[in-house]
Amino acid sequence: MASTSKSNPGHFFEDFSLGMPLNHATPQTLTEGDIALYRALTGGRFVQYSSAEFARGAGYPGLPIDPLHAFHVVFGKSVPDVSLNAVANLGYADGRISLPIMPGDTLRTVSEVIGVKENSNGKTGVVWVRTRGFNQRGEEVMSFVRWVMVNKRDASSPAPESVIPDLPKVVPGAELTGFAGMDSWDATLSGSEYMFEDYAVGEKINHVDGMTVEEAEHQIATRLYQNTAKVHFDAHGQKDSRFGKRLIYGGVVISIARSLSFNGLANAGHMLAINAGSHVSPLFAGDTIYAWSEVLETAELSDKVGALRLRLVAVKDQDPGAFAYKGEDGKYADGVLLDFDYWAAIPRKC
Amino acid sequence: MASTSKSNPGHFFEDFSLGMPLNHATPQTLTEGDIALYRALTGGRFVQYSSAEFARGAGYPGLPIDPLHAFHVVFGKSVPDVSLNAVANLGYADGRISLPIMPGDTLRTVSEVIGVKENSNGKTGVVWVRTRGFNQRGEEVMSFVRWVMVNKRDASSPAPESVIPDLPKVVPGAELTGFAGMDSWDATLSGSEYMFEDYAVGEKINHVDGMTVEEAEHQIATRLYQNTAKVHFDAHGQKDSRFGKRLIYGGVVISIARSLSFNGLANAGHMLAINAGSHVSPLFAGDTIYAWSEVLETAELSDKVGALRLRLVAVKDQDPGAFAYKGEDGKYADGVLLDFDYWAAIPRKC
Amino acid sequence: MASTSKSNPGHFFEDFSLGMPLNHATPQTLTEGDIALYRALTGGRFVQYSSAEFARGAGYPGLPIDPLHAFHVVFGKSVPDVSLNAVANLGYADGRISLPIMPGDTLRTVSEVIGVKENSNGKTGVVWVRTRGFNQRGEEVMSFVRWVMVNKRDASSPAPESVIPDLPKVVPGAELTGFAGMDSWDATLSGSEYMFEDYAVGEKINHVDGMTVEEAEHQIATRLYQNTAKVHFDAHGQKDSRFGKRLIYGGVVISIARSLSFNGLANAGHMLAINAGSHVSPLFAGDTIYAWSEVLETAELSDKVGALRLRLVAVKDQDPGAFAYKGEDGKYADGVLLDFDYWAAIPRKC
Repeated sequence: MASTSKSNPGHFFEDFSLGMPLNHATPQTLTEGDIALYRALTGGRFVQYSSAEFARGAGYPGLPIDPLHAFHVVFGKSVPDVSLNAVANLGYADGRISLPIMPGDTLRTVSEVIGVKENSNGKTGVVWVRTRGFNQRGEEVMSFVRWVMVNKRDASSPAPESVIPDLPKVVPGAELTGFAGMDSWDATLSGSEYMFEDYAVGEKINHVDGMTVEEAEHQIATRLYQNTAKVHFDAHGQKDSRFGKRLIYGGVVISIARSLSFNGLANAGHMLAINAGSHVSPLFAGDTIYAWSEVLETAELSDKVGALRLRLVAVKDQDPGAFAYKGEDGKYADGVLLDFDYWAAIPRKC
Repeated sequence: MASTSKSNPGHFFEDFSLGMPLNHATPQTLTEGDIALYRALTGGRFVQYSSAEFARGAGYPGLPIDPLHAFHVVFGKSVPDVSLNAVANLGYADGRISLPIMPGDTLRTVSEVIGVKENSNGKTGVVWVRTRGFNQRGEEVMSFVRWVMVNKRDASSPAPESVIPDLPKVVPGAELTGFAGMDSWDATLSGSEYMFEDYAVGEKINHVDGMTVEEAEHQIATRLYQNTAKVHFDAHGQKDSRFGKRLIYGGVVISIARSLSFNGLANAGHMLAINAGSHVSPLFAGDTIYAWSEVLETAELSDKVGALRLRLVAVKDQDPGAFAYKGEDGKYADGVLLDFDYWAAIPRKC
Repeated sequence: MASTSKSNPGHFFEDFSLGMPLNHATPQTLTEGDIALYRALTGGRFVQYSSAEFARGAGYPGLPIDPLHAFHVVFGKSVPDVSLNAVANLGYADGRISLPIMPGDTLRTVSEVIGVKENSNGKTGVVWVRTRGFNQRGEEVMSFVRWVMVNKRDASSPAPESVIPDLPKVVPGAELTGFAGMDSWDATLSGSEYMFEDYAVGEKINHVDGMTVEEAEHQIATRLYQNTAKVHFDAHGQKDSRFGKRLIYGGVVISIARSLSFNGLANAGHMLAINAGSHVSPLFAGDTIYAWSEVLETAELSDKVGALRLRLVAVKDQDPGAFAYKGEDGKYADGVLLDFDYWAAIPRKC
């Protein structure tokens, strides 16, 4: 009997149409086991994700899942339907993490195509999707837009009508939700005395420390999120690729850079929104990640809680105190890995 | 004072006699921590082991331990008493996984010698054992036979009377137990629309994806199962061995090949029985595993549940779409790692 | 705007003064996820940390956290305040682990400076701290002293008055607390028939097995403990260091050597006290750890429980059966990694 094709070929550009719903497979229950692994893989020390006692005192229902961890899980589910044939992950926008995700919660992912545009080469197109994560009670825990460049199955297929979604450059501070009360916040236990009022727009923070990433580490992390994009796992298959080796999932870079940002932003561990993000250059095993941040904006969320809008820049094999970013030509400097714009909650001074 | 010998020397061929019971040490409690690690190490996505909500809806008592994970744990316990001095792990037969294994369960392993046969060289012999796994309530959760080639302590010891157990080539479909009701099964969430009726005997399925294995990964996995066979961990000691390096535990190959089989067999995640298995050639760190399956037999278990008898073949550093297996001479083709014959439960079409 | 310095610079020698309290950040809740990871990273098989059923029968409240695991966590918290600018970790003394640490417990660390002494070179000094770990109920679960050599910020700062604490060479056996009742102890399940009475002072035990350590493994373990000392993680930064590469956290060596000691000391899994410890030489990824033990002293703790005072010696890339230790000149032999003196509880014969 001949072989059959029951494996998932993924979607090509022609398969995406405006408004098309994508119900993604393999909902995932997150547990204390996931929390321990995420910490061990990223070096996370933000106190509300480290101490159940601290978290409860600060208004969380218990020791929560780091929202960035949950983001990778929600994202991972969308890969087989959105980006299996993607050439590039182009960007993120309008990400909102609106509910705490707790151990025992089961996350399910649903996407909708909100934009399509064929590229002028006729071989690829850009697809925009809004991806939503839901818990087992059907509550939306997060929502974000991403866009990817996807191969066409057949270059001769006609181009669809271009629809480019109108996306906010920034989630407005006034629309941030899902933060904890932070009524009680022991700055000794959290690791830093610097609160909301201590940060000023324009300030740049050197996170100093470096973290080298091994093949085993990024593979274990990426499988933890059930992200199965081949380029991260198949060294044999990658031999003939552009880089000749496995590429590290960009989410690994975001998480390690965020963990490094503890050193300077220890109280700003709670990510509320993702405004924008670019994976500027690829990371490979053996490279060392460093990070720096810039305060872009501030917002008062309550009497006790503020928010910092931060640019998190990850760089490779270089002193982050040089604050490498873009040159005068607007191009990213050598060694910049990640340009990530997000909001984080941080307690206010009493 | 002279040194003493309190370390476990393992059993040699002469130590095994027919009917000899082996009560293995270090029962192990499996938890959500084990589930997270198993997923992160193998890339598992079968939905009943990923989502507690889905599992409950499909008739499981909650999010279960993957039976193949539990098999490695039950097997691992037997290594110090059965195969510490083994030259080779020759085969498996008559494996039955009869009860769900849940987080919090403690697994204990007991074996019995059911066959012995000295080899004609007088230096080694083959030992057959039936190994049983029990939970903390004393219920048998699985049972399997394996046979290993073991060194003699002293080549001049007399040969025992040969007893070769009569083993079934296949666990009959009618004897399969331990499957869930599968009354509710959302094919969108499980990741595939292909159910029992969609698979035909003789059909071959290319699982497409590849997974490269690192030293750290197989060591972490093998320690998770408390399998302590030296060849997997001791690079210094292996320098003078036949291969000159660490060998990867065969169970790592089975689990990764099974995880790869999600792509084509997403609904057949629940292993019910192990009919036969051979580790055809060794895997080393840096190698990439690919897999393909062949449907060997089908069985109807209930109105809602069927079973597929599958041959799972893992290959190394080559396209699994070539379906490499055996040549006309009956010898395995180059690069075949594993030939594994098992039964899996799969929902029927309503 | 100029960059700011909100990152933690760590303390220099001048910053430490006698009696100075150090309240360390990021208390950490330990869970079943941590237990699974610790086992998978170290190869632990001591039965009271493997089986919840066995543990309960032996008088533990349930499946406890291995005290050595908890030690690394309590220790890790102290790194940012004590040893970020340390040149060397010189020793441990008077370590007492006095309460079981259970999944769900949150550990917090507090230290006090109990000694300071500037070195004659005027560039560094030695600081002694007593470090205490507390659970979420405020109960002290462990206490130990360590001393480190720390850089001065400014060589011209005046030397403080030298105070060298008076430390016990050994925690007296009569002061050991925190052991379980061990009323019930199944020697088959624990993996060894050798009990308290079977060990004699002066006896040396070869633990036989070897374990090779990969970069990914020690990094994952060290992050699990939230120990952030740069030398373990930053390959780029270490290029210009003395060794030119990452150093493995000494605690990884202790834990792996202890796990290897299962083979010969399977019933002595419960560490009660740390009398002394030296990291004799550094371990690097790719090295293989072997271990041997010597019985230094014994103590009867109850009718059912005894304690062995053990010297645990880890060696690198050599047969531990050679019992390499110190030469006639009192210097450690080549390849000795660790000299660790501790007490462990072990059941008595009935």
